[in-house]
Amino acid sequence: MRLLELLLGRPLRSDEESVQRIGVLTAIPVLGLDALGSASYGPEAAMTVLLPLGGAATIWVRPITLAIVGVLTVVALSYAQTLPAYPNGGGSFTVAKENLGRTPGLLAAAALCTDYVLNVAVGISAGIGAISSAEPRLLPYTLPLCLGVLALLMIVNLRGVRESGLAFLVPTYLFVASLLFTLALGVWKTVVAHGHPTPVVPPPHLPPTVAAASLWLLLRAFASGCTALTGVEAVSNAVPIFREPRVHRARRTLAALAVILAVLLLGISVVSQAYGIGATEPGKPGYQSVISQIVGAVAGRGWFYFLTMGAVFSVLTLSANTSFADFPRVCRLLALDEYLPPAFAHRGRRLVYSRGIISLAAIAGALLIAFGGITDRLIPLFAVGAFLAFTLSQLGMVMHWRRTGGPGARRSLWMNAAGASATTVTLGVIVVSKFTEGAWLTVIVVPLLVLGFTYIRRYYDRLWGELGAPSPLDLSHLARPIVVVPLLRLDRVARKGLRLALSLTDDVRAVQVLTEEMMVEYDLRNRWPDLVERPARAAGLPVPQLVVIPSEYREFFGPFLGYLRGLAALEPERSIAVLVPELVRRRWYQFFLESRTTILKALLLLEGGPQIVVIDCPWYLRDELDEKLVTRPPRFRIGRAGRAARAAPASRSPGRAPS
Amino acid sequence: MRLLELLLGRPLRSDEESVQRIGVLTAIPVLGLDALGSASYGPEAAMTVLLPLGGAATIWVRPITLAIVGVLTVVALSYAQTLPAYPNGGGSFTVAKENLGRTPGLLAAAALCTDYVLNVAVGISAGIGAISSAEPRLLPYTLPLCLGVLALLMIVNLRGVRESGLAFLVPTYLFVASLLFTLALGVWKTVVAHGHPTPVVPPPHLPPTVAAASLWLLLRAFASGCTALTGVEAVSNAVPIFREPRVHRARRTLAALAVILAVLLLGISVVSQAYGIGATEPGKPGYQSVISQIVGAVAGRGWFYFLTMGAVFSVLTLSANTSFADFPRVCRLLALDEYLPPAFAHRGRRLVYSRGIISLAAIAGALLIAFGGITDRLIPLFAVGAFLAFTLSQLGMVMHWRRTGGPGARRSLWMNAAGASATTVTLGVIVVSKFTEGAWLTVIVVPLLVLGFTYIRRYYDRLWGELGAPSPLDLSHLARPIVVVPLLRLDRVARKGLRLALSLTDDVRAVQVLTEEMMVEYDLRNRWPDLVERPARAAGLPVPQLVVIPSEYREFFGPFLGYLRGLAALEPERSIAVLVPELVRRRWYQFFLESRTTILKALLLLEGGPQIVVIDCPWYLRDELDEKLVTRPPRFRIGRAGRAARAAPASRSPGRAPS
Repeated sequence: MRLLELLLGRPLRSDEESVQRIGVLTAIPVLGLDALGSASYGPEAAMTVLLPLGGAATIWVRPITLAIVGVLTVVALSYAQTLPAYPNGGGSFTVAKENLGRTPGLLAAAALCTDYVLNVAVGISAGIGAISSAEPRLLPYTLPLCLGVLALLMIVNLRGVRESGLAFLVPTYLFVASLLFTLALGVWKTVVAHGHPTPVVPPPHLPPTVAAASLWLLLRAFASGCTALTGVEAVSNAVPIFREPRVHRARRTLAALAVILAVLLLGISVVSQAYGIGATEPGKPGYQSVISQIVGAVAGRGWFYFLTMGAVFSVLTLSANTSFADFPRVCRLLALDEYLPPAFAHRGRRLVYSRGIISLAAIAGALLIAFGGITDRLIPLFAVGAFLAFTLSQLGMVMHWRRTGGPGARRSLWMNAAGASATTVTLGVIVVSKFTEGAWLTVIVVPLLVLGFTYIRRYYDRLWGELGAPSPLDLSHLARPIVVVPLLRLDRVARKGLRLALSLTDDVRAVQVLTEEMMVEYDLRNRWPDLVERPARAAGLPVPQLVVIPSEYREFFGPFLGYLRGLAALEPERSIAVLVPELVRRRWYQFFLESRTTILKALLLLEGGPQIVVIDCPWYLRDELDEKLVTRPPRFRIGRAGRAARAAPASRSPGRAPS
Repeated sequence: MRLLELLLGRPLRSDEESVQRIGVLTAIPVLGLDALGSASYGPEAAMTVLLPLGGAATIWVRPITLAIVGVLTVVALSYAQTLPAYPNGGGSFTVAKENLGRTPGLLAAAALCTDYVLNVAVGISAGIGAISSAEPRLLPYTLPLCLGVLALLMIVNLRGVRESGLAFLVPTYLFVASLLFTLALGVWKTVVAHGHPTPVVPPPHLPPTVAAASLWLLLRAFASGCTALTGVEAVSNAVPIFREPRVHRARRTLAALAVILAVLLLGISVVSQAYGIGATEPGKPGYQSVISQIVGAVAGRGWFYFLTMGAVFSVLTLSANTSFADFPRVCRLLALDEYLPPAFAHRGRRLVYSRGIISLAAIAGALLIAFGGITDRLIPLFAVGAFLAFTLSQLGMVMHWRRTGGPGARRSLWMNAAGASATTVTLGVIVVSKFTEGAWLTVIVVPLLVLGFTYIRRYYDRLWGELGAPSPLDLSHLARPIVVVPLLRLDRVARKGLRLALSLTDDVRAVQVLTEEMMVEYDLRNRWPDLVERPARAAGLPVPQLVVIPSEYREFFGPFLGYLRGLAALEPERSIAVLVPELVRRRWYQFFLESRTTILKALLLLEGGPQIVVIDCPWYLRDELDEKLVTRPPRFRIGRAGRAARAAPASRSPGRAPS
């Protein structure tokens, strides 16, 4: 408990939530990290595909980048139409569900979830890749470093990071400014040197050409590069967090993001071609990220290099943080529609959706481990989810405009249709060209997720159906249950159990299951009249019955459950309460000493059937009880949580209690 | 269940046990496997210590063997005195406990347990070592092979192997016969060749001498070689299993074992010296056991070689089986005296002490894994336990004869005193010389085990003290409990719970723990009069009270337990039964959907205190219920176990049931 408090901070009361609205300058870091950060790995992903071309790769980078920027423009314009239509947040799930129906909505949600998980993995591993480029001695520790950053992000997000969005300002603008400066300097040097600038730090030699450029290779490079577009949809989700006029501010944010991203992408393509920079084999010795090569070639490896690489690392890591903000929200929307368990919609001790955060970290961690922490192998998995969500969202908007009509609807419809076409084509290219490299996994995972959501929804539908609506209590034929008390000796534990049983009902059966060997020592039949029947009669209570069941096979559970089954068949109208007198063991090592009651309770629950009820009558060893009473208060934080509760029983007016 | 039946066979009724008594010829394999098998690793262990002497080692083997045979003679004569004194089985634990007191008895038991565990590990790994000598390609698989044999032994013993002792006959006598033949042939060839026979298959060259013989080295070799004596005590334990006159037969068995063992040890020393055979580095490539070298050198590598090595493997593996027979019996004796949990004294489904067998296999398996399956590293741990048990047993017998007196007591006393001295000296040598090689572990483990036994005994002493003797039921001040029903909605699950609560008591409190967000949707206060109070009044029942507890921190457990604590303080004389309406999830994957009731029940048990009782009111989804009713009979084997039980409820005379 202490450790938890230290890591996550004190619990927050529900009324401690403060809503802050933001403007464009703040929104760019808060919502744009994901989009901007992808500028640093998108081009590199495309160039990695072009590796077999060797030196010839550089001439292909620019046309591919132009195609990507084209798609970016269409997508951004298209999302600009979504903003006014869904001023309360038009995530792909909402837009697709409302306009296309349940299954497309779930498909979009599943694609988004996949996308967010992969964004965490890719963001962190690209960030670690960036600092490994600056400091190659870190290369062997890629995976542990990735997992460390992941754990840190999870803890920070479990603490709640609404305010910390502001802390993103510095690295984001540093990233944008230093990269823009580098690229501008590079372009200027290129122009001055008539297209052939001399690198300050020469980039690694491009590998020898082992293949000719083919349409197939170029399509694959384009598909990989399209990961640079992920994160563009974030603004559409978040209109409510803007200050008024919020749609206007949201649009300006979206435009600013798209422009910066486009400039970065184009600049990278120009400078890398001029300096002859290509990708290096990821995960191999000598690996150096494209950004690192560019900064080194343009500005050398001085303080500016390390400043820029630090900003890249921060932004990539923080871009993973975007997922931590959005994934739990998608999960919450799913949980509200009962496609996920309700716990995903509950706010945890720090008012964040803890279940979603933990799930995200767990899945991303598993992915990082499975792929050894290397970005490049994760990217094929990545773009499919993102572009599927894009496409469904745009298609949903097309249907939206068709339905609503009105002034400007026609124009918006065409914009969204253009966006939908562009993303559909891109999605097709990605799926086809990346299929064998891992995209098949996403193609399988997303529908499986949809099936899972549907299963959970059906489960809850059936559950609520069976649980029924509130209705008046039916108290007809209310009979006291038969209470069955399994016992071996008539010791204090058993006597406490029998007392309780007699306080609950008038039909108590004590059951001894005895093997032949135990008959002599344990059989209570001779002593039962003295020890139990006489005191019961004296107290004017019904007499508990003793049943001795022989156990041929030295088993307890079989004969006992058999007896219960027979009893249930004889008395089909009555509840049968099995009262388990249990010696509570509070120390872990005492669990080795015996645990039969635990098994009995589990068996009764799982196999007992609707007539059977289990009563657990605990009995504590005296010294442990003393110790327990001493340590009790801190365990439940009675100071806070218990305050209201302790007051409760004081009000005894039936039906009303203080709230 | 099916798999269990296949592996272990059908359960046995208690009356299916058949006791068979045996004679000398059968007793030698049943009781002597451990003793005889150690002939094949004892000498090798000594020679391994002598490795640094190189070729000079061979001249030291004979004096060391003579010393070991001397100790063997004294120990055997000493045990011969124990047999008539304890005709019902005089294991070290019994003899030490009865004659020396509680702590020496436990010390002997702990030493024996350690010895048995190590015997399993050493026996199996030596057996695997023997076949690896014949087939070196098996060497890399030493550990998996060891664990496989261990698992097999565990399963065979869980099935119960009383009869299978007879199956030991063939390999045991084959082992004795083939080894005796080899050694005789070797001696004969040596004599014929005037002390310098030509090996059929030359043994590996002895390594170069890197050290001179020192007393220290020779003592260590002697200490290692003394492992050949383990198992000699088995007969003393098992007098009751002989046909009458049992003491006579037991003595003859002991004598036969001692003589065969002595001959084997002496023969090995003579032949190995004549052929220049020494140990090879264990666990290294080129390893070959001493027995394998001897058989190869004397008789070549024909069918006879493989026959002999097969017999060695069988005997070593089966000698591990001796521990499986004896360890559970020692555990049972300890459990009867409450130094171990009673489960160790219960016979399992096949009438064997399953708990002891499984524990033995688990510990031996852990040891094999820790030591990588190599015998030699385990041997230093081994001899300490065995000789400590020897010594305590002999000392106990000395006290026994002093106490009883009578004709022959004096002679027996001196014999046992001689045995005690010999084993004490040997024990001293072993502990000192093997201390740094691992014997310190045994020196720590044995006292720790004694402490553990003592802790368990004290726990049960205190337990029975607190549980008290059977006494008449005290039914004064019997009040019906307050039943608290935590609920969220008034659905079927909750209604079943409330119905049950009203059938049990007249004071029912329904408790809703609500966060601010939940207040609107779930607060039942407005509907409570209609849905619950009116039906209760109409049925003439006391009215259940509704308590709504606000949860500032969105927590359930804290506020609810705080409420219970307040209630318990207000009503210190009454029991408080928490009735948990529980939706039973019978499929594993549904446990992901929610498990709050499980946590609640555990918290209530561990932290609730003596006033709190837990009532578990299960509610099943309809289709799972149907399925359950269909599959129910086979699950509990109602055919067998349920037979007697089903008959039970038919007899309703209070206090008597069919037995």
